[in-house]
Amino acid sequence: MIVDRRTGVARMLTESLGSLGALFAWDIIVVLIFQLAHRSWMDQPALPVSLIGSALVLFMSVRNTTAYNRWWEARTLWGSVVNNSRSFSRQMATLLGGAPELTRAMIGFGHALRGGLRGVDVTPEVQRFLTPELAARVRGRRNQANAILYEIGVLVRVQALERKIHPAAQAEIDRMLSDLANAQGGLERIRNTPLAIQFSTLPRLLVRVFCLILPLSMVQDLGWITPFGSTLVGFLFVALDEIGGDLESPFEDSPHAVPMLAITRTIEIDLLQALDEPAPEPMLPARGVLP
Amino acid sequence: MIVDRRTGVARMLTESLGSLGALFAWDIIVVLIFQLAHRSWMDQPALPVSLIGSALVLFMSVRNTTAYNRWWEARTLWGSVVNNSRSFSRQMATLLGGAPELTRAMIGFGHALRGGLRGVDVTPEVQRFLTPELAARVRGRRNQANAILYEIGVLVRVQALERKIHPAAQAEIDRMLSDLANAQGGLERIRNTPLAIQFSTLPRLLVRVFCLILPLSMVQDLGWITPFGSTLVGFLFVALDEIGGDLESPFEDSPHAVPMLAITRTIEIDLLQALDEPAPEPMLPARGVLP
Amino acid sequence: MIVDRRTGVARMLTESLGSLGALFAWDIIVVLIFQLAHRSWMDQPALPVSLIGSALVLFMSVRNTTAYNRWWEARTLWGSVVNNSRSFSRQMATLLGGAPELTRAMIGFGHALRGGLRGVDVTPEVQRFLTPELAARVRGRRNQANAILYEIGVLVRVQALERKIHPAAQAEIDRMLSDLANAQGGLERIRNTPLAIQFSTLPRLLVRVFCLILPLSMVQDLGWITPFGSTLVGFLFVALDEIGGDLESPFEDSPHAVPMLAITRTIEIDLLQALDEPAPEPMLPARGVLP
Amino acid sequence: MIVDRRTGVARMLTESLGSLGALFAWDIIVVLIFQLAHRSWMDQPALPVSLIGSALVLFMSVRNTTAYNRWWEARTLWGSVVNNSRSFSRQMATLLGGAPELTRAMIGFGHALRGGLRGVDVTPEVQRFLTPELAARVRGRRNQANAILYEIGVLVRVQALERKIHPAAQAEIDRMLSDLANAQGGLERIRNTPLAIQFSTLPRLLVRVFCLILPLSMVQDLGWITPFGSTLVGFLFVALDEIGGDLESPFEDSPHAVPMLAITRTIEIDLLQALDEPAPEPMLPARGVLP
Amino acid sequence: MIVDRRTGVARMLTESLGSLGALFAWDIIVVLIFQLAHRSWMDQPALPVSLIGSALVLFMSVRNTTAYNRWWEARTLWGSVVNNSRSFSRQMATLLGGAPELTRAMIGFGHALRGGLRGVDVTPEVQRFLTPELAARVRGRRNQANAILYEIGVLVRVQALERKIHPAAQAEIDRMLSDLANAQGGLERIRNTPLAIQFSTLPRLLVRVFCLILPLSMVQDLGWITPFGSTLVGFLFVALDEIGGDLESPFEDSPHAVPMLAITRTIEIDLLQALDEPAPEPMLPARGVLP
Repeated sequence: MIVDRRTGVARMLTESLGSLGALFAWDIIVVLIFQLAHRSWMDQPALPVSLIGSALVLFMSVRNTTAYNRWWEARTLWGSVVNNSRSFSRQMATLLGGAPELTRAMIGFGHALRGGLRGVDVTPEVQRFLTPELAARVRGRRNQANAILYEIGVLVRVQALERKIHPAAQAEIDRMLSDLANAQGGLERIRNTPLAIQFSTLPRLLVRVFCLILPLSMVQDLGWITPFGSTLVGFLFVALDEIGGDLESPFEDSPHAVPMLAITRTIEIDLLQALDEPAPEPMLPARGVLP
Repeated sequence: MIVDRRTGVARMLTESLGSLGALFAWDIIVVLIFQLAHRSWMDQPALPVSLIGSALVLFMSVRNTTAYNRWWEARTLWGSVVNNSRSFSRQMATLLGGAPELTRAMIGFGHALRGGLRGVDVTPEVQRFLTPELAARVRGRRNQANAILYEIGVLVRVQALERKIHPAAQAEIDRMLSDLANAQGGLERIRNTPLAIQFSTLPRLLVRVFCLILPLSMVQDLGWITPFGSTLVGFLFVALDEIGGDLESPFEDSPHAVPMLAITRTIEIDLLQALDEPAPEPMLPARGVLP
Repeated sequence: MIVDRRTGVARMLTESLGSLGALFAWDIIVVLIFQLAHRSWMDQPALPVSLIGSALVLFMSVRNTTAYNRWWEARTLWGSVVNNSRSFSRQMATLLGGAPELTRAMIGFGHALRGGLRGVDVTPEVQRFLTPELAARVRGRRNQANAILYEIGVLVRVQALERKIHPAAQAEIDRMLSDLANAQGGLERIRNTPLAIQFSTLPRLLVRVFCLILPLSMVQDLGWITPFGSTLVGFLFVALDEIGGDLESPFEDSPHAVPMLAITRTIEIDLLQALDEPAPEPMLPARGVLP
Repeated sequence: MIVDRRTGVARMLTESLGSLGALFAWDIIVVLIFQLAHRSWMDQPALPVSLIGSALVLFMSVRNTTAYNRWWEARTLWGSVVNNSRSFSRQMATLLGGAPELTRAMIGFGHALRGGLRGVDVTPEVQRFLTPELAARVRGRRNQANAILYEIGVLVRVQALERKIHPAAQAEIDRMLSDLANAQGGLERIRNTPLAIQFSTLPRLLVRVFCLILPLSMVQDLGWITPFGSTLVGFLFVALDEIGGDLESPFEDSPHAVPMLAITRTIEIDLLQALDEPAPEPMLPARGVLP
Repeated sequence: MIVDRRTGVARMLTESLGSLGALFAWDIIVVLIFQLAHRSWMDQPALPVSLIGSALVLFMSVRNTTAYNRWWEARTLWGSVVNNSRSFSRQMATLLGGAPELTRAMIGFGHALRGGLRGVDVTPEVQRFLTPELAARVRGRRNQANAILYEIGVLVRVQALERKIHPAAQAEIDRMLSDLANAQGGLERIRNTPLAIQFSTLPRLLVRVFCLILPLSMVQDLGWITPFGSTLVGFLFVALDEIGGDLESPFEDSPHAVPMLAITRTIEIDLLQALDEPAPEPMLPARGVLP
């Protein structure tokens, strides 16, 4: 996630540069043909461009809202993982009477979830927080995070039976695990369900076509300064298109992603400090981007 | 659900091809009449087309948002079925002390729900996961998924009485069944309530009319290149209309449907692995479409 | 609720017919005056019509979204009544150990709620599912559905005391009754709170005024074909206005209403089948309309 | 809340009358100056007015949506107070075994909440439903409704200890009180947080400025009929502005407010009837307005 | 939070003054060049400005909606802290049998949360409400509010064990702490996740560019009065941009922030009065701004 504005703008301009260069070159070609050859078929009226333009803007605002909502839902679900991890660690003390190895396993759950969503191997980071038995039990399971949650539940039961915890208290802990399972499932839903083609690829295509006909409709009025006007309008549309593209995949390894590394670090700190154990420092942004 | 972008765009173009061809043909006819006969009544001003166009775009963006929300709600409710199935399987271990036949029955519930929503017969897949007694009890019931959920609840009660499980724990499991009933009911609500006619058929009709008058208003300005301009604008509107149509029925047997087969397979894998039983492979997309 | 598309479109056209006829007549009058008398004050520019038109479209899209959300919320709350009725019937078996008379009373609750929302007398249908004592107790109460829910709660308590059910289980059943009370209250809120005048009557008025000035601004350009152009644009606006009007009262006795009869029938079937009692057939649409 | 459409439209026209009169007068002045003095600087092109107009409409549609959402959230939270009051009265019978004085106190809570939100003194209506001891305890507390809820909780505890009610049942009742506290807090949040200046006062200002320049841009085209065209467009914008203003303060003593008197009366009836006590009649609208 | 309308408008105008002055100066320069030098390249048509303008308005309305939703979510979560603090204080009396030191610690939680969100040191205000032991335990913890919540949970457990409180009641209190943890986590999520660059900095940039080309497109029509027209349109866009900027950081030390001081004061009053302790006066707005 980009947290520094200057970095963000610079990056956005850089990303649009290719499209803009191509657009500018095309504009120049159009102007040259028009000014040198005076093709009469270029005398198009303004109507279609204006109508298509309005339609495109509206279309993309719907699409960008959708992409942003996906991103924000992903961020909110990760926030829910943080909250519930904290509450779980509190319940270990208040309802179960202390179980540091389960609180630590919950940190491992956060890391496993992050690994699963981005599709990277985080086994060392996960196993650092699991007891050897737990690590052995979840090995080879397709969905690591789900397996850890399951085994935490089983261990809570073991402790509850040993310490004669009342089933009402155990049920309350189990409900927290269900809340975590819901957050996990929501995150997996977002990852597994790409934004519908109709809202991702089609707008991109339409913007390209629009940029191609843009100078054609401007050149008879603007003449030699067409490239400037056309590129300016084109930038607006290309930028709108970039926004949606940036936000639609919140777990990819991109500077626009949800900062999962920083979030799991927050879980680590808060849960370790509750156990009075030494905790690492919070993650800092690197060159304006929080990983 | 289409997961491959190239497939998606190709499919969208193919689906629009018929409409576009008809539109192009009509454009040619209009141009020929205009250029050869110079009918003076064709000299319409641009106003109505531009106004109707803006109105249509706005109308369809409302409608597409609505259709997309239906689709996404359906996907979210299926996600909720996945989460609650996992949590239920965990509760079988943590609160009930192990009940593999009930966890397996929950896999059957997912398949039965899928069958009911799409209106296909999934009896073999469902019964593979039910005990013979359970299979016998739900036979002939109108709503298979609801019946399985009901019988699971009854079996939980039997186990709870046998094993002297505390009623608080049993109530917690029952609440999970209520959450599953809510997700099921939500999915049935979406299937049983088609998108209001006003948001589905009317826009389609209006787009057709709009495409008919489009070349009439362009021809006096664009002349011989009218078909290109008119077809381009027409494609934008036809595509917007297609989007809504694709998304409004999320359970139909179409490439745009919610991937219920893949989702129930996920449930199968996660629940079987929790029981240490052999699990099938995840469903893979076939030619860009996840079934 | 209209479930057949052809019926829906036919009905929509029929409903708009009066407005369209009046509009067409007015258009003809304007053209005749203009063509025969050439009143110079009719030479209005296009600006106000285009601006008013865009404003109206946007205004009505907000209003239609609001009306649709009301309708969909009503449908969702009825869905919630279905889900919770099913879960309640399951809890009668799982938490209370079987209480057919209470499950049957819950069917009565659905019917009473439907009667209260539409303002029709459903006493026979309700009482068919109540024991004589229960029927006697709720007689004369202003809010029948609420009274039935109250008395069900009291009867659950009686059974729970008799059978020595643990209070945790009884509390869980009581929570289900609270969920049903929430759904009922939400439905009553929608019925008792008409859509604000500003979003219902004002747009209708503005559309009428707009349709009156529409031909005035078109006639100097379109001449004799004004009625066709003006009626086409007018239809778009009248149709947009109809949509909101159709959806804003989801419980009225209209083909656009939430299909409460079909929904309560669904409850009847699912709850009776769970009791192994003979159940009626699902409600079928009559001439494209599900009642 | 206005429940009669005719009243509503009449009221809306009356409220806009002042603005419209001023606007019409200004239009006349502009026309006179233009027609008599033919100031050349009045020959402005249409562009800025059309652009500003579209911008304003969009701006106000966002604002009106926001204002409407506030109003509807307020109505929904009051609905939640109704539902939870009913459920609380049921729980008094089902979980606590009957406590009429607590059910009556809950009616007092509704009245106290209404008084606090509107800022009026409702002490007599509140105290009519409280026992003398309870009335004495809440006297002098800043937040009457919150104090009553607190004391109800304390009295539930006293009863629960006396009658040996299981803590699980008492906890369930306490949760209902928490739900009521949430609804109360939500209502207070809406009252204490006026709609942001940017969404309330700024649009009003901009509409005024827009109405001032409107005739200036129309007069050279419309001539003597400018006042009619300009006032018509102006009315659209003034009406859009009125809508937001009407809805943004849902608890003020205005005909557009949430009908809190009728809602608390509903609570009164439903709770008294559940106690088999005589209940008043439902509140009726007075001259089209439900108080 | 600005609660006085006059203050709000004055402030908004002041904040826009710099931008408006610069815009006005640029407008004057453009007019002078045009009128004195009659550069022919200044004869640009209106199309791009109108199209860009519509696009920008739509873009910013999406963005302002997003910023407002963030603000309102922040306010709602603080409202949730208020509600849950009240319910917690009630539970101390009803479920735990009185624990003034824990109710007081909850006031400290509110202050700590406020300090953490704004990044100011509130140690004295927090410690005033904590027992010395509790204050010592949370010292040095990175997340003060979370640490207080954790320790409150531990102290509830101690009391529950001492007084033989049933685990079901303790679990209910623990759930309230989880709700508070959720509200806290939600607030931290909003603070830690700035509005995406694409929705904050990009619009600001585009508005600037738009204001630069605005007079260029108006000057050939408006001549000497260009600065007035251009500045008026420019103000609309600058104001729209300001709105988003004001609302996007709800916890910063700005007059537009959520009034966290007033909210924590409300918690203080309500909780102290419930303990029959002397409470401070509610926070009053200072020069139209509630801190």
